[in-house]
Amino acid sequence: MEFTINQVAGMLGGEVKGNGNEKINMLAKIQDAKKGQIAFLSNPKYEQYIYTTQASAVIVKKDFAPKKEISATLILVEDPYSSFTALLEEYHKMISFQKSGVEQPSFIGDNSTVGTGIYRGAFSYIGGNVKIGNNVKIYPHTYIGDDVVIGDNTVLHASVKLYSGTRIGSNCVIHSGTVIGSDGFGFAPQGDGTYKTIPQLGNVIVEDNVAIGANTVIDCATMFGDSTVVRQGVKLDNLIQVAHNVEIGKNTVIAAQTGISGSTRIGDNCIIAGQVGVAGHLVITNNTSIGAQAGILKSITEEGGQILGSPAFDVKEYFRAYAVFKKLPDLNSRLRELENKIRHLESRPVQEINTK
Amino acid sequence: MEFTINQVAGMLGGEVKGNGNEKINMLAKIQDAKKGQIAFLSNPKYEQYIYTTQASAVIVKKDFAPKKEISATLILVEDPYSSFTALLEEYHKMISFQKSGVEQPSFIGDNSTVGTGIYRGAFSYIGGNVKIGNNVKIYPHTYIGDDVVIGDNTVLHASVKLYSGTRIGSNCVIHSGTVIGSDGFGFAPQGDGTYKTIPQLGNVIVEDNVAIGANTVIDCATMFGDSTVVRQGVKLDNLIQVAHNVEIGKNTVIAAQTGISGSTRIGDNCIIAGQVGVAGHLVITNNTSIGAQAGILKSITEEGGQILGSPAFDVKEYFRAYAVFKKLPDLNSRLRELENKIRHLESRPVQEINTK
Amino acid sequence: MEFTINQVAGMLGGEVKGNGNEKINMLAKIQDAKKGQIAFLSNPKYEQYIYTTQASAVIVKKDFAPKKEISATLILVEDPYSSFTALLEEYHKMISFQKSGVEQPSFIGDNSTVGTGIYRGAFSYIGGNVKIGNNVKIYPHTYIGDDVVIGDNTVLHASVKLYSGTRIGSNCVIHSGTVIGSDGFGFAPQGDGTYKTIPQLGNVIVEDNVAIGANTVIDCATMFGDSTVVRQGVKLDNLIQVAHNVEIGKNTVIAAQTGISGSTRIGDNCIIAGQVGVAGHLVITNNTSIGAQAGILKSITEEGGQILGSPAFDVKEYFRAYAVFKKLPDLNSRLRELENKIRHLESRPVQEINTK
Repeated sequence: MEFTINQVAGMLGGEVKGNGNEKINMLAKIQDAKKGQIAFLSNPKYEQYIYTTQASAVIVKKDFAPKKEISATLILVEDPYSSFTALLEEYHKMISFQKSGVEQPSFIGDNSTVGTGIYRGAFSYIGGNVKIGNNVKIYPHTYIGDDVVIGDNTVLHASVKLYSGTRIGSNCVIHSGTVIGSDGFGFAPQGDGTYKTIPQLGNVIVEDNVAIGANTVIDCATMFGDSTVVRQGVKLDNLIQVAHNVEIGKNTVIAAQTGISGSTRIGDNCIIAGQVGVAGHLVITNNTSIGAQAGILKSITEEGGQILGSPAFDVKEYFRAYAVFKKLPDLNSRLRELENKIRHLESRPVQEINTK
Repeated sequence: MEFTINQVAGMLGGEVKGNGNEKINMLAKIQDAKKGQIAFLSNPKYEQYIYTTQASAVIVKKDFAPKKEISATLILVEDPYSSFTALLEEYHKMISFQKSGVEQPSFIGDNSTVGTGIYRGAFSYIGGNVKIGNNVKIYPHTYIGDDVVIGDNTVLHASVKLYSGTRIGSNCVIHSGTVIGSDGFGFAPQGDGTYKTIPQLGNVIVEDNVAIGANTVIDCATMFGDSTVVRQGVKLDNLIQVAHNVEIGKNTVIAAQTGISGSTRIGDNCIIAGQVGVAGHLVITNNTSIGAQAGILKSITEEGGQILGSPAFDVKEYFRAYAVFKKLPDLNSRLRELENKIRHLESRPVQEINTK
Repeated sequence: MEFTINQVAGMLGGEVKGNGNEKINMLAKIQDAKKGQIAFLSNPKYEQYIYTTQASAVIVKKDFAPKKEISATLILVEDPYSSFTALLEEYHKMISFQKSGVEQPSFIGDNSTVGTGIYRGAFSYIGGNVKIGNNVKIYPHTYIGDDVVIGDNTVLHASVKLYSGTRIGSNCVIHSGTVIGSDGFGFAPQGDGTYKTIPQLGNVIVEDNVAIGANTVIDCATMFGDSTVVRQGVKLDNLIQVAHNVEIGKNTVIAAQTGISGSTRIGDNCIIAGQVGVAGHLVITNNTSIGAQAGILKSITEEGGQILGSPAFDVKEYFRAYAVFKKLPDLNSRLRELENKIRHLESRPVQEINTK
C-alpha cells in the first residue's frame, strides 16, 4: 500500500511540483505529518505549517503562492480538502478490505457457501446452510448461525453474533460485540406469579448500506415469517437496543444507548439522539428528530417534528418550560407572596367605607 | 423434525379431515403458509385465507363449517389458538435442543464434568473444576471460567461469558454477549486523588428458570462467600447492568438498558421498565412497578406501588405534575399578570377615601 | 496457593497463638468460615462468632482478651481489618495472576512479541506487529488487532476486543466484552437523504492503571494521528459509551451506562454517576461531580460543581425545583384561586365610592 506522489496526483487529477517519485504510505495532518506521509493545506490559518512540515507531499490549492521555501512536494488541485477526503476514503477502503483468505482454525458447517475475496478470521464460526457473498470480511470470533444470508462487501468485525436465520444486506459494516437475532423479550404472566416464555421464532433483516456500532442488540421477531427490519442506509451507534418486531425506516440515524421497544415502527430519515427511549407499538413518522434522553410514549404523526423530554413534546416548548422549572422555588415564593397580599387586600375595610 | 399431520393431530387430541399422511415441518401464519407447513384459523376475520392457503394443514375449531372448498387437510380441535401455541412451544423446544455433540476445536479444562445430551459448540471454552448438568447447550465462543456450576437444560448462546465461580441453575437461557461475574465497581479514594482497587472476590448465583438477554452484565459480589443473586423465574432483557451484591427477587421482570446499583435488593414479582436507574443500598419491596427512565433514589416500602420520574414518585401524580410542567411558561405569565394586577389594586386610593 | 498460619502471620508481622502449622487456603467472614479458612475479628459486635467459628485461624487485635475458649488459632496484629484487607489484596493478585502459559489453539500473527509471564488463553487472537509487555494476562476469546501495544501487568478478560492500533498502558484491567477502537459514529448527510461514511482512522490510547468494566465501548478518533484518550487512573464501569475523540482526564470515575459524545473533554478527578449523557464538543472542568441520569448540554467551567437534571444545573437547586415540581398541580390550583379572588377584588365598587 505504497504509492508514488505522481500516482496520487494522477488519482486526484492534480499537478505535481517537486519530486513526484517519492513514495508515500500514510495520510496525516500538516502539523503532525512525517516523511512518507501526505497532508493538505486548505485553511489559510494553517499556512505556517507548510514551511516546516516534514510531510513528503502536501495537497494545495491550484493558485497557492508560497511565501517561503517549501521542502515538501506539492500537488496542486482545485479543492485540497475534498481531494484529501477522497484519498482518506480510498485509504479506508483499502484498510477495510485488505484482509483476505482464511485463518486457521476456523469453522464452517455443511452446505454453506462463500463468495470470492472473502476473509475468514481465526476462530470465526459459520453454521450450516449459510450463504455469504463476495468480498465479505469476517473478523475473528464472529458467530454466524445456521441459515444466515449475507450480501457482498459486508464487514463483520470481531465477535459479531448473528443468530440463525438472520439476513444481512450488501455494503454493511457491523462492529464488535453486536448481537443480531437474539430472542425478543416476551413472557406471558401465569396465575402463580411466574412467567411462561413466548417462543421467539421470527428473524432479523438488515438491508443494504447499513452501519451498526459495537455491542448493540437487535432482537428477532416473535412469529414465524415475521422480521425485525432495519431498512437500507440506516446508521446505528453503539449499545443500542432494538426490540422484537421493530422496523427502522430508510436512512434513519440513531445515536448510542437508545432503546426502541417491541413492534414500534420508526419512519425514514429520522434522527434520534442518544439515550432516547421509545415505548412499544408506536409509529414515529418520517423526518422526526428526537433529542437526547427523551422518552416517547405516543406515536408521532406530524412530519418534521423536533421533540424532547420524558414524555417528549416540542423541543422549543420543552426548553421554555424547563427554564421556568429551574425557577420553580422562586415561582412558589412569588405565589405565596401574592396569597399574602390578597389576604391583606381582602381584609381592607371596603364595606365600612361604603356605609360611611 | 418432520411429522405427519396424523402425528400432529395425535399430539393435540384433534380429529383429521383430509390426507393425514402428508408431512409438515414448519408452522406459519395462514396468509403466508406454504406446502409442508401448518397454520391455524381462530379469528373469523382470517377465514378468507383458509380457502386460498397453500398450507398442508390448518388447525380449526371443531364446529368450523367451510363455505367453500379447502385444499388443506384440517385438524379439528377445541381451541385452535392454544393448540397452535402448544405446537409452537414444542417446535421451539426442538429447535433449541436440536444441537448436540461436540464441535472441534473446543476446550475443556481439568476435572470438569458434563452431563448427557450436551452441545459444546466450536471455540467454546470450559475451564477447570467445572460441573455441567444434562442437556446443556453451550454455543460457540462461550467462556466458562474455573469452578463454575451449571444445572440441567440450560442454554448459553454464542459468546456468553461466565467468570470463575459463577453458579447457574437449571432451565435458564442466557443470550449472546452477556457477562456474568465481572468485577464490581469498587475503588477506594486515596489522598493523592488516585483510587485503589477493592478486590472483588464474591460470585454470582443465578437460580432456576431465569432468562437473561444479550449483552447484559451482572457483577460479582465484593466479599468472599457473598453473592450477587438472581432468584428463580427472573427475566432480564438486553443491555442491563446489575452491580455487585444486588439481589433480584423471584419472578421479577426487568426491561432493557436498566441499571441496578450495588447492594440494592429488588423484591419478588416487580416489573421494572426500560432505562430505569436504581441507586445503591436500597430495598425495593415486592410487587413494585417502575416506569421507563425512572430514577429511584430511596427505598420503596409499600407494596404494589407504581412510580415514575427522576427521582420517582407515584405515576399518576407524576403525570399530573408533568401536565402542568408543560404549561409552565403560561403559568409564569399568569403569575406575572396577577402580580401586576395586585400592584394596581394595592395602589388604589383606599386611604384617601378613608380620610376624605 | 496454600500457606501455613505461621507463614501468613509472618507476612502480617503478627504473633501466633495456637497451632501455626495448620494450612489455610481461603479467606472468609468469621460467621461463615470453615476449616482451612482464615477470618478476622475487628468490630466487637461480631465477637460472639469467634467462640463458634470453624475457621482455622482468626486475625485479632493484639490486646484481644477472649471470654471463652476459642478453637481457632489466633494471629495477633495491630489492626485486624487492614491486615485482612492486605491479605485479600494479596490473594486477589495471586488469583488474577495465577494463569500463565499458552493454551491451544490460540493465534498470533507475524512480527508480534510478547513478554515473560504471559497467559494466552485458548482461542485468543493476536494480530500482526503487536507488542505485549510482561505478565500480561489474555483470557480466552480476546481479540487483539494489528499494531496494538500493551504495557506490563495488564489483564484482558475473556472476549475483550481491541481494534488495530489501540494502545493500552500498564497495570490496566479490562473486563469481558469491552470493545476499544471501533469506528466513531460519523456520517455526512447527502442531498438525497442518504449518509456517506466519514472514514475513522484514529485510534484509542488507554494510559496506565486504568480499569474498564464489561461490555463498554470506546470509539477511535476520526483523523489519522488523533486519539480518543483515557488518562491514567481512570475507572470506567460497565456498558459505558465513549465516542470518538473524547478525552477523559486523570483519576476520573464514571459509573455504568453513561455516554460521552464525540470530542468532549472530561477533566481530572471528576465523578460521573450512572446513565449520564454528555453532549459532544464540551469541556467539563476538573473535580466536577455529575449526578445519575443527568444530561449535560453545555461546558462546565467552574471547578467543584455538583450538577443534576437534564439539562443539568446545581444539584441543590435541582432538588429544590423538583420538590416544587411534585406539587405543580397544587400550585396550579392556588394560582387559579388567586385569579378568581383578584377578579372578585377588581369588581369591588371602588369607583363608586370615589364619586360619592
